[in-house]
Amino acid sequence: MVKTVTILGSTGSIGTSTVKLLLENRDKFKVIALTANKNTELLAEQAKLLQPEFVATDAEAICEAASMKSDIVIAGIVGFAGLKATMKAIERGATVGLANKEAMVCAGSLMLQAAEKSGAKIIPVDSEHNAIFQVFDFKNPASVEKIVLTASGGPFRNLAAGELGKVTPEQAINHPKWKMGAKISVDSATMMNKGLELIEAYNLFPVKPEQLDVVVHPESIIHSFVHYNDGSVLAQAANPDMCVPISYVLGYPERLKNNSKRLDLTESGALHFEKPDYEKFPCLKLAQEVLGKAQSYHIVLNAANEVAVEKFLQREIAFTDIAKIVEKSLIAHKETKISTLNDVFAIDAEVRRNLP
Amino acid sequence: MVKTVTILGSTGSIGTSTVKLLLENRDKFKVIALTANKNTELLAEQAKLLQPEFVATDAEAICEAASMKSDIVIAGIVGFAGLKATMKAIERGATVGLANKEAMVCAGSLMLQAAEKSGAKIIPVDSEHNAIFQVFDFKNPASVEKIVLTASGGPFRNLAAGELGKVTPEQAINHPKWKMGAKISVDSATMMNKGLELIEAYNLFPVKPEQLDVVVHPESIIHSFVHYNDGSVLAQAANPDMCVPISYVLGYPERLKNNSKRLDLTESGALHFEKPDYEKFPCLKLAQEVLGKAQSYHIVLNAANEVAVEKFLQREIAFTDIAKIVEKSLIAHKETKISTLNDVFAIDAEVRRNLP
Repeated sequence: MVKTVTILGSTGSIGTSTVKLLLENRDKFKVIALTANKNTELLAEQAKLLQPEFVATDAEAICEAASMKSDIVIAGIVGFAGLKATMKAIERGATVGLANKEAMVCAGSLMLQAAEKSGAKIIPVDSEHNAIFQVFDFKNPASVEKIVLTASGGPFRNLAAGELGKVTPEQAINHPKWKMGAKISVDSATMMNKGLELIEAYNLFPVKPEQLDVVVHPESIIHSFVHYNDGSVLAQAANPDMCVPISYVLGYPERLKNNSKRLDLTESGALHFEKPDYEKFPCLKLAQEVLGKAQSYHIVLNAANEVAVEKFLQREIAFTDIAKIVEKSLIAHKETKISTLNDVFAIDAEVRRNLP
Repeated sequence: MVKTVTILGSTGSIGTSTVKLLLENRDKFKVIALTANKNTELLAEQAKLLQPEFVATDAEAICEAASMKSDIVIAGIVGFAGLKATMKAIERGATVGLANKEAMVCAGSLMLQAAEKSGAKIIPVDSEHNAIFQVFDFKNPASVEKIVLTASGGPFRNLAAGELGKVTPEQAINHPKWKMGAKISVDSATMMNKGLELIEAYNLFPVKPEQLDVVVHPESIIHSFVHYNDGSVLAQAANPDMCVPISYVLGYPERLKNNSKRLDLTESGALHFEKPDYEKFPCLKLAQEVLGKAQSYHIVLNAANEVAVEKFLQREIAFTDIAKIVEKSLIAHKETKISTLNDVFAIDAEVRRNLP
C-alpha cells in the first residue's frame, strides 16, 4: 500500500530529513506536494527527485498544497507562518506530522477541535512530544501522573548567568546536540524552546499545567518521560536525529524502518539529569507561568518571542533582552477569547505592531 | 468491579509485596487463596488480614489453590517447585503474574501453548520482563529489532575476577539494589539471574536469540529497553520496588495506583551503562550460549544452577564452582524433545541425580 505525502516546508531541516526518508522508501510513498519559502533551488532539486504533483512557494499556493488530498502532511514550516496551511491539512482529515510547534502553541485548541471534526490524526514530530506520544496511554489518560520533557539545556547551560548579556547570535546558534534552523536554535539557547514545548504538550495531551515538568538532560538521548500512577515511568530514547520521529509519522501506526544510527548506551556512557535554572533562563519561567492562563497569553508569548529572536539575530538587542521583551508584552496583554483562527491572527498582529 | 486474586508463595518477597498492595486496595480485590511453603506463621497472619477462601502449604494443596477460580494468580514461588502450580493457573485461563522465572525457563513453550489454548494472559513480574511487556508492540513484533535487558551487575561488579573464588554466601546475598531471597541473590551475584532472564525473555517475546542482549546498568533505574527498527528505543523506568510490576499485573489492562516512591531522575544524578564482562561472569555466557539450543538445555542449565547455588549456600563449594557445575552438566547433556510437563520433570530430575 502506497501512502501519499505532502511536505510543507520541504527545504527546512524537517523537510530535508523527510525528503531523505522518502527517497529511501520510493516504493512505499508517493509525493503529492512540496512547498518552500525562499530556497527555490533546493525545492526544484527535490521536485526533480520526488516528482510531486504540485510545488508551491507563496502563502496562498502553500495553503492550496496543504488542501490537496494526501494521506500524510509533514507540517515543517517554522513559526507562525505555518499555521494557516497546517490548519488546512487538519481540516481535510490528514495524518499531520506536526513539526510546527508555534502553530500548536498559538492555536492548539482550534487545531484539536478541527481534528476531532475531520478525523485528522495529529502526531507531533518534535522529538520530545513524539517521545511522549509513543508512550502515553491514551486509553487510560487518568493513569498519567506527570509528563517530564527533557531539555538539552542549550549551548549556555554551563555559562555564568552574568555572561549571557554578551553572547552573539553565532554562539547562540551553535547548539551542542541538534543542527537546526536559526530561530529554534536561539529558542533552545534561551530555553524558550522548552517553554513553547510545555505549552505544546499541554495542548497535545490531556494533562493539567501542574502535571508538566522539565528536566535538563544534556546528552539528549532520552526525549521525554511519562510518569504513571503505579510508579512506572515510560520513555523513548534515540540518537538525536529527526529522521526517527519523522519515520514514526510516516510509518504510523506501523513503523518505518530507516538507516538512522542505532542507539548504543554503552557508547554514551552516562546519562545526566538536573533541575533547570529558572533564574538564568527566565523565558522558561515565563512560559511555565502562562501555561495555565488563557490561550491568548500563549499567542502573545510566542509572537513577542518571534519578534525578539529576530531582533537578536539582527544584532539589534542583547540575548538577555529577549526575555524582557516577552515579559513586557505579557504584562501589557489583556486576556482575549479565542474562537477562530482570525482571533489568533489578530492577537499575533497586535503584539507585533506594539513592539518597536 | 472487584477482581479475585490468588497468591502462590504469599510469604516470599513477591508474595509479601502483593499482600501489601491488596491490603491498600481492599475495595478492589478479593483474595481466593494464599499458599506458602514453610513460613506458616506469616501465612496465618496474612490469612487473618485478607480472609482468603483457601490456604495451602503442601505441594498438592498448592496445586489445588492454583486451580481454584480467580481472575489473577500471582505466581511467586521461587524455583522449579512452582512450575506445576503455575501451569494449573495457566490451564484454567487466569491472568498470571509470573514471578517464577525458572518455570518460564524450563517450560516456556508448554506454558505458552497452554495459555493459547485456555486464553490465559501471562504477564511477567520480573522487573525487566515487565518493563519489556509495557513497551513491546505486540501488534507489530517485526518492528522490534532488539531487546536489551538491564543488569545491576550484582554485588561483585567491581571485584577483581581473581577474588571471586573467595566470596562468602553472606557477601553474595548482599545485593546493592534489591532485597530478595537467597537463591535469586546468588544468581544475581553470578549473573546467572540475567542469563535465566535472557531465556525467559526468549520464551515470552517473539524474538530470535541474536535479538537479545544485556547491558550493565548499576543504578537499576531503567529496567529494560526495546529497540525498534526506526531507531526508537522504548523503556520503562522506576525505583527498584517490586510493588511497581506487581501493581501493573493487578491493574492490567488499566493501572493500579500505589504509594511507591516516585522516580526523580534529578536525585539519581547519572545513569551508567556498560557492557557485561562475560569472562568474569561465565554463568551469563553459558546462558547466552544455550539460548538458541533446544529447550532441554535450558532445563539442564536451570537444574544444575539450582543445585550448585544450594551447595554454595551450604558452603560445600566455592562461588566460582557454580559456573563449573553448570557447564559440566550442559556438556554431559544430550538434547531431548520436550512435549509434556513430565518430560521437563524427567530432565530436571536426571540432572539433579547426576550431581553428587
